[in-house]
Amino acid sequence: MKTDKILLEHGSGGLLSNEIVSKLFLPAFRNPLLEQLTDSAVLELGGKRVCFTTDSYVVSPAFFPGGNIGSLAVHGTVNDLAVCGGRPFFMSAGFILEEGLPVSDLRKIVDSMRLAAAQAGVEIVTGDTKVVPRGAADGIFINTSGIGIVEYAQRISPESIEEGDAIILSGSIGDHGAAIMGLREGFENAGIVSDSAPLNGLVDRALAASGRVHCMRDATRGGLGAVLVEIASQAKAELEIRECDIPVKEAVRGLCEILGMEPLYLANEGKLALFCHKDDALKVLDAMRGHEFGRDAAVIGEVTGKKEGRPGSRALLRTVAGGTRVLDLPAGELVPRIC
Amino acid sequence: MKTDKILLEHGSGGLLSNEIVSKLFLPAFRNPLLEQLTDSAVLELGGKRVCFTTDSYVVSPAFFPGGNIGSLAVHGTVNDLAVCGGRPFFMSAGFILEEGLPVSDLRKIVDSMRLAAAQAGVEIVTGDTKVVPRGAADGIFINTSGIGIVEYAQRISPESIEEGDAIILSGSIGDHGAAIMGLREGFENAGIVSDSAPLNGLVDRALAASGRVHCMRDATRGGLGAVLVEIASQAKAELEIRECDIPVKEAVRGLCEILGMEPLYLANEGKLALFCHKDDALKVLDAMRGHEFGRDAAVIGEVTGKKEGRPGSRALLRTVAGGTRVLDLPAGELVPRIC
Repeated sequence: MKTDKILLEHGSGGLLSNEIVSKLFLPAFRNPLLEQLTDSAVLELGGKRVCFTTDSYVVSPAFFPGGNIGSLAVHGTVNDLAVCGGRPFFMSAGFILEEGLPVSDLRKIVDSMRLAAAQAGVEIVTGDTKVVPRGAADGIFINTSGIGIVEYAQRISPESIEEGDAIILSGSIGDHGAAIMGLREGFENAGIVSDSAPLNGLVDRALAASGRVHCMRDATRGGLGAVLVEIASQAKAELEIRECDIPVKEAVRGLCEILGMEPLYLANEGKLALFCHKDDALKVLDAMRGHEFGRDAAVIGEVTGKKEGRPGSRALLRTVAGGTRVLDLPAGELVPRIC
Repeated sequence: MKTDKILLEHGSGGLLSNEIVSKLFLPAFRNPLLEQLTDSAVLELGGKRVCFTTDSYVVSPAFFPGGNIGSLAVHGTVNDLAVCGGRPFFMSAGFILEEGLPVSDLRKIVDSMRLAAAQAGVEIVTGDTKVVPRGAADGIFINTSGIGIVEYAQRISPESIEEGDAIILSGSIGDHGAAIMGLREGFENAGIVSDSAPLNGLVDRALAASGRVHCMRDATRGGLGAVLVEIASQAKAELEIRECDIPVKEAVRGLCEILGMEPLYLANEGKLALFCHKDDALKVLDAMRGHEFGRDAAVIGEVTGKKEGRPGSRALLRTVAGGTRVLDLPAGELVPRIC
């Protein structure tokens, strides 16, 4: 690794996040499941295809427009299972609490977890609580892990992507990142609300509409931009998306202009990118638009090339101005503790 | 709850830990699996009995004689699965890192996780890394969750305990707690080493020796004392253990005398208490003694009474001096960040 100390950027979802995974975690834990680097591991357990995922949540502030760290922790893990084609069933909840945290805050957070789990149809079946002295943590951190069953026949993975596939985005981008940044920077009256939501119902509809959904990913840390760069690299494919087809809410766009941020790299907590066979794109789009969390779904681009071992795997953005830009992993533009 | 702020004691494994679970988490997430309050949830998934558990690790210091937070995080989760009769297969690892953590420390910790996972025969298949700014965490926190398969026919649970059952302890108590406390208090040359170890191999042997193992629990936070009080309460049973039969290492006993601690309530990370039919006790004991982590196993007591709804469910200690003491959950005697 390039540095001898951990930097905030190692947790950004960008370049240094990739480095810590590829240079430190992967070499240590190397196994075929981990190497897929998908949001969940899909494994054989007792003869069934089971998906398994984990995420820790450290978002600051813990309460924000549209949710709090509790609902976020449920949605994030439900979504990581769903985008791997898994039906989420059970979750764990591990709490790290700072001494002095108001019990009333914990109650609100736990209540949001209960509601979020009920909405997603999952049960929280095991848990753990640790308390650390004042100053050894910041309020509350939550880890949620989740398990589910994968029944979809087509393997959902960047490797399954084919040339010509349509790329569908489930709705407007940047809402979660803008909500948190707005709150931090004193724009809490901008009317921006996090999009934090469980996507398993939406995914159910999309998968029922087509047997040829090849890949899905929720666009969390690093935003849609980072997700597409990673998928292009893992799929060894060239993708092209059209800026004009990507929905961005007016308020989000406005805040981004003021703060000098790009919606494409802002975190989402209720949005996914889906790759499917081009002939099924309209069926899938229709199915998604019929769901409350996919009303603004849009076809935003396609897979323009895929060759084994082709070094030119990349994600291209056709800009509104008519130019073409090669997307990179975000570097340096940090939004720490966004989730 | 009795307080309006979270106290260190809410994470102690004692009285207030019980309160936060029974007054806050259980009412919110209420479901039959969580209500069992066992170390793992045992659930039906795709027609199989799957066990699922989670734990966050915040131990301070992160490096201690006999291990570090990484090996501890693997052992703890492996053991939570094993004592529910589960064969651990897969684990997740979620890291919360403080900005500025030396990369070399992280490497050592991850390397210990790799070795511990290999020794226990589990694979780390999914993970997550978050970085928080300096001062928002203390070095490194790790969450591990684990899943496994339960094949043992007898249900392993306090409810399965029968009157007359033998209580077997797998070895000496207090080693982990004393190692951490010794380090903190400047007795690092006392020669006390944490007992942190994976217990799934030991459990395999015990279960192969008898079909009538009724309950197991690893004696972590709160020590053997807290575990027995909890089991007595959940089993609605009266237990009796003999102080003279409980192995405590000389160095641990010495440190406890200096620091005014009781080995019975000190954390262990490689010890379990096992309840089995009295006629199988010697077979199980023999099997355990044949394993490296059970060499000092001993029958320490028995279940002296079990009646439905009997209010007098309790754990009794016959002291070396010849008296009898009713064991309580530890209160006030805090060892924060022991695991």
